[in-house]
Amino acid sequence: MAATSAPIRVGVIGAGRIGKVHAANLAYRVAGAELAAVADPVAEAARETAAQLRLDRWTADYREILADKSIQAVVIASSTDTHARLIEEAAAAGKDVFCEKPIDLDLARVDAALAAVKSAGTRLQIGFNRRFDPSFARARAVIAEGGIGTPQLIKITSRDPQPASIEYLAVSGGLFTDMTIHDFDVARWLVGDEVVEISAMGAVLVDPAIGKLNDVDTAIINLRFKGGALGNIDNSRKAVYGYDVRVEVFGSAGSVLVGNHAPNAVTHTTPAGSRGELPMHWFIERFEQAYLNEMAEFVACIREGRAPSVGGEDGRAPLLMAQAAWKSLREGRTVALEA
Amino acid sequence: MAATSAPIRVGVIGAGRIGKVHAANLAYRVAGAELAAVADPVAEAARETAAQLRLDRWTADYREILADKSIQAVVIASSTDTHARLIEEAAAAGKDVFCEKPIDLDLARVDAALAAVKSAGTRLQIGFNRRFDPSFARARAVIAEGGIGTPQLIKITSRDPQPASIEYLAVSGGLFTDMTIHDFDVARWLVGDEVVEISAMGAVLVDPAIGKLNDVDTAIINLRFKGGALGNIDNSRKAVYGYDVRVEVFGSAGSVLVGNHAPNAVTHTTPAGSRGELPMHWFIERFEQAYLNEMAEFVACIREGRAPSVGGEDGRAPLLMAQAAWKSLREGRTVALEA
Amino acid sequence: MAATSAPIRVGVIGAGRIGKVHAANLAYRVAGAELAAVADPVAEAARETAAQLRLDRWTADYREILADKSIQAVVIASSTDTHARLIEEAAAAGKDVFCEKPIDLDLARVDAALAAVKSAGTRLQIGFNRRFDPSFARARAVIAEGGIGTPQLIKITSRDPQPASIEYLAVSGGLFTDMTIHDFDVARWLVGDEVVEISAMGAVLVDPAIGKLNDVDTAIINLRFKGGALGNIDNSRKAVYGYDVRVEVFGSAGSVLVGNHAPNAVTHTTPAGSRGELPMHWFIERFEQAYLNEMAEFVACIREGRAPSVGGEDGRAPLLMAQAAWKSLREGRTVALEA
Amino acid sequence: MAATSAPIRVGVIGAGRIGKVHAANLAYRVAGAELAAVADPVAEAARETAAQLRLDRWTADYREILADKSIQAVVIASSTDTHARLIEEAAAAGKDVFCEKPIDLDLARVDAALAAVKSAGTRLQIGFNRRFDPSFARARAVIAEGGIGTPQLIKITSRDPQPASIEYLAVSGGLFTDMTIHDFDVARWLVGDEVVEISAMGAVLVDPAIGKLNDVDTAIINLRFKGGALGNIDNSRKAVYGYDVRVEVFGSAGSVLVGNHAPNAVTHTTPAGSRGELPMHWFIERFEQAYLNEMAEFVACIREGRAPSVGGEDGRAPLLMAQAAWKSLREGRTVALEA
Repeated sequence: MAATSAPIRVGVIGAGRIGKVHAANLAYRVAGAELAAVADPVAEAARETAAQLRLDRWTADYREILADKSIQAVVIASSTDTHARLIEEAAAAGKDVFCEKPIDLDLARVDAALAAVKSAGTRLQIGFNRRFDPSFARARAVIAEGGIGTPQLIKITSRDPQPASIEYLAVSGGLFTDMTIHDFDVARWLVGDEVVEISAMGAVLVDPAIGKLNDVDTAIINLRFKGGALGNIDNSRKAVYGYDVRVEVFGSAGSVLVGNHAPNAVTHTTPAGSRGELPMHWFIERFEQAYLNEMAEFVACIREGRAPSVGGEDGRAPLLMAQAAWKSLREGRTVALEA
Repeated sequence: MAATSAPIRVGVIGAGRIGKVHAANLAYRVAGAELAAVADPVAEAARETAAQLRLDRWTADYREILADKSIQAVVIASSTDTHARLIEEAAAAGKDVFCEKPIDLDLARVDAALAAVKSAGTRLQIGFNRRFDPSFARARAVIAEGGIGTPQLIKITSRDPQPASIEYLAVSGGLFTDMTIHDFDVARWLVGDEVVEISAMGAVLVDPAIGKLNDVDTAIINLRFKGGALGNIDNSRKAVYGYDVRVEVFGSAGSVLVGNHAPNAVTHTTPAGSRGELPMHWFIERFEQAYLNEMAEFVACIREGRAPSVGGEDGRAPLLMAQAAWKSLREGRTVALEA
Repeated sequence: MAATSAPIRVGVIGAGRIGKVHAANLAYRVAGAELAAVADPVAEAARETAAQLRLDRWTADYREILADKSIQAVVIASSTDTHARLIEEAAAAGKDVFCEKPIDLDLARVDAALAAVKSAGTRLQIGFNRRFDPSFARARAVIAEGGIGTPQLIKITSRDPQPASIEYLAVSGGLFTDMTIHDFDVARWLVGDEVVEISAMGAVLVDPAIGKLNDVDTAIINLRFKGGALGNIDNSRKAVYGYDVRVEVFGSAGSVLVGNHAPNAVTHTTPAGSRGELPMHWFIERFEQAYLNEMAEFVACIREGRAPSVGGEDGRAPLLMAQAAWKSLREGRTVALEA
Repeated sequence: MAATSAPIRVGVIGAGRIGKVHAANLAYRVAGAELAAVADPVAEAARETAAQLRLDRWTADYREILADKSIQAVVIASSTDTHARLIEEAAAAGKDVFCEKPIDLDLARVDAALAAVKSAGTRLQIGFNRRFDPSFARARAVIAEGGIGTPQLIKITSRDPQPASIEYLAVSGGLFTDMTIHDFDVARWLVGDEVVEISAMGAVLVDPAIGKLNDVDTAIINLRFKGGALGNIDNSRKAVYGYDVRVEVFGSAGSVLVGNHAPNAVTHTTPAGSRGELPMHWFIERFEQAYLNEMAEFVACIREGRAPSVGGEDGRAPLLMAQAAWKSLREGRTVALEA
């Protein structure tokens, strides 16, 4: 295991909401890293992000980043339909890659990208940020230490404060592929087992326009794990009180619960009741620390010559689960996942 | 609506665990009621219960109670297989009846009992005690007042601290009929709608002996309501930390959550963590107030000449749901309930 | 230690709010006890209480109870100015006594009553009900087991939902003697040590009429214990959100916190916040179980031939503390308690 | 009111624990600011801090910073005994100043420094970071909006996880001046009124070495405000479970409570209890956001040409309170503060 002492130079491809978060973390907050450049097809977005970070290197053409030998790694935070191609090109250029989820909506495309990484011998980390959240990570540690015995039930609640735009939703792959995919990853990771059966129900309760996309905005999904545990995920595109992400894992010796995070710890009590704060309203604030931690892990993996803990297979498995959920929803039956 | 001012004389049939609770409430704590007699085929159980309540009237033969013209109402807390017959006999004797759930495991038998009550013109209240719990009742009130808008998701957790004896389980009708039946009732009542589809998964994770009964001890059940809402119930026969009964109803304008009740409000903080109390360990303590309230409601209905809020149909519907859950579990598909 | 097997017959003197609670507990809920008679100078109050409990024995003259040889014990729940005299008369009649706090507002009068009990060799239990509350008792147990190490700080909050009537307050002895006296008892008991110094501040913030009585309605009181621990009590006659009674004991190895009890465990979340239930509104509901437990303890002490755990000295010590608090308030200095 | 658009260049004097926090915030996280230089008499500390922040300007002589015309403002985070002098020199050099608390332990010295600032017409902000914490700020907002009516009681708990070194404590000015001073500020600010009387009790329960300094390590302090409200502060130098900082303000129309912040939102439940996370262990983590916010406010004040919300008088008043607390402790009486 070789350790590098010079900072790892990282290029960020995509200067949208998430790309900006990653760029800022790399610029200031990740020890051992150096933000090398920012690329975005919208040149102005790349320029503005660079300026905010006092970085003089930005481009509308990501290929400049791939061509720069001094850059060892890239963060892919562009639109989903470009992920697989960029992974392949980056691997071919010998860059380690951090890629936002999902890798692609098409399984064959995912497999091709993973094969490209494998043959290039480069690293690939998938952006399942919840694994790096202090609360989720603590829950995982409790389970791993045997703190709840054998997991028997997992219950995940995952609700957004409001739906994304219809334009976004139309190309998102739908609820299971776009939103539940995080929950599928959390389920596999916390239980420490693979899902073998899925049964889903969905409904359009938030916005009829979502129904017209042949999508659903509200769902409950039952899971069966290989080792026998059962699980349930509920999703809604609109929780009026904010971003609601909670998990409970119940086992033979106890349970562990991840609650919401609130922006403050204030309780206001009047004759009308005792009012506690709502959860943080959006994932960017809720998972601020998680975004920082996952990038620190990516950089540390490169520096220490080890493989990321959330690799390509972890990007592929939830996609299979999403496909099974869609099939279950449409056929009204429990669907077995292929081994 | 005629009001009676003399106390309502009530006989209790069955001096087991629940029968004793009802008898004690009628003896002391329900205004307008008088415990008239206790019957149990095990004469000693009837005698002992009566003695504890300073009551001189007990019998091994419940027919003495039915024959007593001074007794207006009976509580049926005997074994499940006797419920339907006792309802019919009590109705024939002109008694108002409070009956523990379930009415029977056989739907035809249930229908016959309900018909007998209807033709006798007597009252029948089913012992779905959770509806009378201060926390569940408050949640219902919040929903009924529009506090969460239109219900979209209901999530019920219901776990026992340990399985009943294998002897009991063998005749219980199985998990869905014996345990989930309370949750089915809660789901219908809180959402205020009927369930039209059920999809269940089950597993034997607690005790292989339960599997040998062709039963399951752990389950997750998805529900779809007529109006579009979705739901999920999870059950386990064994939560090592105590009796765990929680509900969340999520709607278009907010959510309402019923938490567990703890025996005290103490938090103990040491370097090892901040330790809160476990939930009350068993349903008898957890629902002590609910048992009292439901009996008060039963007696008040008789005194005020009105129909109980939890009638025969409320006893029948959850049985249909349990049967659909069994069918779904066995056939691996979503099962539609008949109208 | 001789155990009696016949029920202990108990007479209740005083059929006001608290007297009724004790009478009902003795009638139905305390094993090994029998409510023998109820006395109240207002004959109608005595009659009505007896009727509600299906008891045929009531009187306007408590001396009938003292004269009844079949009655072994009495509960004194009459007005404060009669307590000391009744204790003496009951002791002279050989009755064991349960007496509501305070014994008297005058220390010499208290001492005379305690001497009378001592010379009669009868039992005396003071009604410091909080010691029998499940939450307070659990906190005491945690401390006694060494769960917080050596106590260093105790903080007590004790606030009523609204002031009693001015008529009542005028004869109550004032805030420290009437209300803080419970907190003084809790402080001694939880820390397990005696208070040696008191420093109090008071204010009239709730009702100027209370100020005209030369009383205060809001106060903070600092305590120093013999062993070195410090403490603080805060009181208000009016907490608009309900009855607020909490305690924290902080020690060298941790802390223990007693929170409020709520009437239900419901949380209602909307965009306006996450609303939890208010504390129970009044001490009768909040301490329902404590009133039952203390009476059970009193009866058990008699049956088992042992001394009550809350004896005459426990009634005397908080009165000394109240007097020191008044002195501190008036003189603007820390006051030492006499040994 | 003139707004500056170029970044405000700020020098940091003192590269200890807090100086580093301020420097890092100015380097990366405060919009509109630029970290210009770091000074520390220990040159290596200055150099190392600068290097971590990729800053090439550091010095062992703060006078270089004061002499640099391009630097508009300084942060004083050096040892307490240098604060007043540095404020004066910085004011003379025309710099706006952010100074850590306390200004000085000597009141005359404080007054001289404040006079120097006044005559120079520069800005001075005191580092009472809690005012900028999201929870404390939210509590203040609730009170300011009338959410609790008129404040009547304030209760502050403030406990460190372990004492600072005896060397530090020996020059700290003692518990009230070093630690309670934050609570004195919070009390004035949240109640929105000045304290007119103080009564304190103290004890040495944590470490006898602290007693040898003629200091205390545990204290309770009662406060009376000009408008009539009362207050209590409790302090301990050692809470074994972590940094414990909570406040409750109780008023005529309700109460507001600031709880602790925990590093995660995980609850782990086993038969041994339901274990919640401990509070964050130290003030640097607990108030990370507050340190950032106060610096952002300082820079915004300069840019927008307005006076800081926490000015010199806010640095002076708590010092007066600390002196009164010492006097009360030593004389065993309530001490009035001079107007």
